[in-house]
Amino acid sequence: MIEITFLGTSAMVPTKDRNHSGIYLEFNGEGILFDCGEGIQRQFKIAGIAPTKIRRICITHWHGDHVLGLPGLLLTLGACGYTGVLHLYGPSGSKEYLGNMMSGFAEKISIDVEVHEIAQGMIFENDLYMLSCAPLEHSIECFGFSFIEKDRRRIIVPFIRKLGIPDGPLLGKLQRGIDVVWEGKNITVDEATRVVHGKKVVYIGDTLFCNSAVGLSLDADLLITEATLSDTIEEKAENYKHMTAKQAAMLANHANAKKLIITHFSQRYKTMEVLEEEAQTVFANTQCAYDFLKIKI
Amino acid sequence: MIEITFLGTSAMVPTKDRNHSGIYLEFNGEGILFDCGEGIQRQFKIAGIAPTKIRRICITHWHGDHVLGLPGLLLTLGACGYTGVLHLYGPSGSKEYLGNMMSGFAEKISIDVEVHEIAQGMIFENDLYMLSCAPLEHSIECFGFSFIEKDRRRIIVPFIRKLGIPDGPLLGKLQRGIDVVWEGKNITVDEATRVVHGKKVVYIGDTLFCNSAVGLSLDADLLITEATLSDTIEEKAENYKHMTAKQAAMLANHANAKKLIITHFSQRYKTMEVLEEEAQTVFANTQCAYDFLKIKI
Repeated sequence: MIEITFLGTSAMVPTKDRNHSGIYLEFNGEGILFDCGEGIQRQFKIAGIAPTKIRRICITHWHGDHVLGLPGLLLTLGACGYTGVLHLYGPSGSKEYLGNMMSGFAEKISIDVEVHEIAQGMIFENDLYMLSCAPLEHSIECFGFSFIEKDRRRIIVPFIRKLGIPDGPLLGKLQRGIDVVWEGKNITVDEATRVVHGKKVVYIGDTLFCNSAVGLSLDADLLITEATLSDTIEEKAENYKHMTAKQAAMLANHANAKKLIITHFSQRYKTMEVLEEEAQTVFANTQCAYDFLKIKI
Repeated sequence: MIEITFLGTSAMVPTKDRNHSGIYLEFNGEGILFDCGEGIQRQFKIAGIAPTKIRRICITHWHGDHVLGLPGLLLTLGACGYTGVLHLYGPSGSKEYLGNMMSGFAEKISIDVEVHEIAQGMIFENDLYMLSCAPLEHSIECFGFSFIEKDRRRIIVPFIRKLGIPDGPLLGKLQRGIDVVWEGKNITVDEATRVVHGKKVVYIGDTLFCNSAVGLSLDADLLITEATLSDTIEEKAENYKHMTAKQAAMLANHANAKKLIITHFSQRYKTMEVLEEEAQTVFANTQCAYDFLKIKI
């Protein structure tokens, strides 16, 4: 299961109720943090999530509201005895920005951070999932990210029990997609297992509506996008290279997404009804994010 | 009247209830911010205080938990159309640290910040108050700050009314300490006014107990000091160059302060009773700070 926690849902200026951007995805006991606005380390505390679970941080772009929580988070991870390498993925310039940021105060971080400057396509893969990125259209270089859980085979237990195949290496082989022989009889993967399709979660950072965002979001089970403003001030949104709630919903439609969560709201909106309703007229299964919203898929 | 709002009261690691350090002092419609830990701009929002009132920021030292809210605050002040010069006072190296910090993300601040690297003594004075600093004893260069409201003369209204002196320039002169003549009669400042003594507020940042802190705090109406740990682990406090609650109270005693508020608490303390009681055995008029505590003096 993939568990997502929204740690911050404001745009440039935070509000009483909304912290700067940060989305935490946990899968198989490990965490991936998408963006790290100011105050995110404290949001982890309030959410009751140990930030030491983070193994990867994906930065959409280097505007302050998406990155100013990095130094504090890295310092705190050091103070908590974080071990292993923390991988940070971000646009070109990420190494220099992070270096400058870390020279902006009189402490050295004690953890091992490996910075990967990304372009397009796969940025990480293991047996369980893939992380990809695609460029978006914002005022500076900005990326969207997709997390794709890999399909896996699950044993059809009644079938196996009937044949009397014990737990152990034979079942492991079947799960990995290899036919086996049991008591002289060939057991095929197709009869002994069924495929469980992995889920796809996409996070679209600050951007105009663009084909690249649609491509990255195709068939997403959960699409998370910015929707800074309402379509009633669409021109303003365009000037600042942001999407409106309606455009976010159009993106979900074009990409054939199953569920849309919009986030990164301008401080001008005191309640989110306007934006939610605007999006729902185009894409019904839309929800507005709020700080500490949890989604399990 | 001086109004003080505690915007953050944690030590290095923030907690669910305590933000990183920040103390806002408002006097005569203008604000002075002492330290600016991560998240302070949002604490202003929650406290319902306009950060555009800030005219001066005093930084005790450049450890992350005292400064990492600066870039976000300065960005937001720019977005709010802040006008005038914002003065920042801090230890040597402040210009370089701030410069690096501001090169750590892809935006430029649009407000005019003047950085003053301080040593000891008066750092600012106007008709109404003085700001001074003194070096403390921490693991890096660190300062304490004193805010001293100037004494002022208040007209003794019944006396003036009896003589029939009208509102206007004559009263202004008396308030400024100048004798005047009314209907041929000499009116002295001493008979027509009384002196209202200005209040003194002192903020002692991270430090060991030291004579310099005592000197700066002498006769403070309100002394605010760090008290990171309990005296039961005094050795640990000394290793990290911090005061215990007991030492903070000793400081208040030695300095003949009227009231002590302790702050900057380690995350290990879930309630503050231990620290408050420990301090009160030495200095009775002690209170533990909490986020959004307001004090008027």
